[in-house]
Amino acid sequence: MIPTSESELTALLQKLPFWEHLTAEEASWLPGQASLNRYPAGAILHSAQLECIGLLQICTGSLRVFLLSEEGREITLYRLGPGELCVLSASCVLHSITFDVHIDAVEDCTVLQTGASALSRLMQENIHVEVFAYRLIAEHFSDVMWTMQQILFMSFDRRLASFLLEETEVSGSDRLKMTHEQIARLLGSAREVVSRMLKYFSEEGMVSLGRGTIQITDREKLKALLS
Amino acid sequence: MIPTSESELTALLQKLPFWEHLTAEEASWLPGQASLNRYPAGAILHSAQLECIGLLQICTGSLRVFLLSEEGREITLYRLGPGELCVLSASCVLHSITFDVHIDAVEDCTVLQTGASALSRLMQENIHVEVFAYRLIAEHFSDVMWTMQQILFMSFDRRLASFLLEETEVSGSDRLKMTHEQIARLLGSAREVVSRMLKYFSEEGMVSLGRGTIQITDREKLKALLS
Repeated sequence: MIPTSESELTALLQKLPFWEHLTAEEASWLPGQASLNRYPAGAILHSAQLECIGLLQICTGSLRVFLLSEEGREITLYRLGPGELCVLSASCVLHSITFDVHIDAVEDCTVLQTGASALSRLMQENIHVEVFAYRLIAEHFSDVMWTMQQILFMSFDRRLASFLLEETEVSGSDRLKMTHEQIARLLGSAREVVSRMLKYFSEEGMVSLGRGTIQITDREKLKALLS
Repeated sequence: MIPTSESELTALLQKLPFWEHLTAEEASWLPGQASLNRYPAGAILHSAQLECIGLLQICTGSLRVFLLSEEGREITLYRLGPGELCVLSASCVLHSITFDVHIDAVEDCTVLQTGASALSRLMQENIHVEVFAYRLIAEHFSDVMWTMQQILFMSFDRRLASFLLEETEVSGSDRLKMTHEQIARLLGSAREVVSRMLKYFSEEGMVSLGRGTIQITDREKLKALLS
């Protein structure tokens, strides 16, 4: 735990979307239920076996939410960066959530945690907090569905990976000068789809994105998508 | 559309969990925004291409929510029976939902539909309706995650299928007299896990469940799980 004054905690908690809907009593009580913590890269923050750690608010660094099979196979569902929130780490107090994810630190990070029982109390007495929690879950549901469709149907990721590999092999450079719009037109897709997939590739360390350029940073990993 | 009087519509709408939180004005306005419809087995109710049909309340029959790949591959996410509700069919008014599912009728069914724009208006002016919608999504998120884990990790469904096939082959009968508890003990699993998987097998037409008995109804489909 990082020593933090109550006013520092309050300043961080004020960024929560439901803060303005808290009563004066709730707003003065909440900082006492929160703590700022530091996790090194690779640390496991949440799993079915660990205690439910409550609402997470990422201050620096990034986290990864993933599924783990009995055989140890991992499926990354989505990542969370600075300013993002996670409530699946409080699944013990969310009766509609009957599955458990794993959460680990991708890089060193600092995370503001609001205890699960505090979240539970707020959800029961303040409907704005309840809406917040379930709306956040719906957003992550969308992230998960996107990832699942990629995994299950494996079409566009392959097409885009093979396009990037071919184009850079032809030019003999790892750098491709092309906008997302141009790639979308060439692949018969939409710009949003291309941008989203490139963002995924970049999160997975396969490419790095610049203004109007795409740099291949891990050709082997990109090739592995085609097999 | 099935001709329905306003009082009949009201009686059906009163089953909605948020009904008691509606204002008198909303409660008298809502029936005019709803209609009772009949769909034959196989009818497609919702897809990315079709207009967003709003909140669904299944009266009789059953619906299936599934993903469809560009190549036409289908993945059943979950099914909905009498009394169950579906809000992903109103994804056009849910800003947190950025994916689209397909919904079709598994059997002939009657469905009460509340228009997407009516749902949108209620969600904006009545926070109880907003909580209802997002909580329902969270529940379906749980269903989807369960299905996804089965598909991605394929372990317990195989183990249970092979157990059912072996046991019935030994006895020479398609009928297995065994409780879920007994099967769970034999497979080193939990009763809930066995019950849930058997329910899934039964929804997929592979087995039919009776009191203390399991009848294999589609041996080939069960065998296909092992390949």
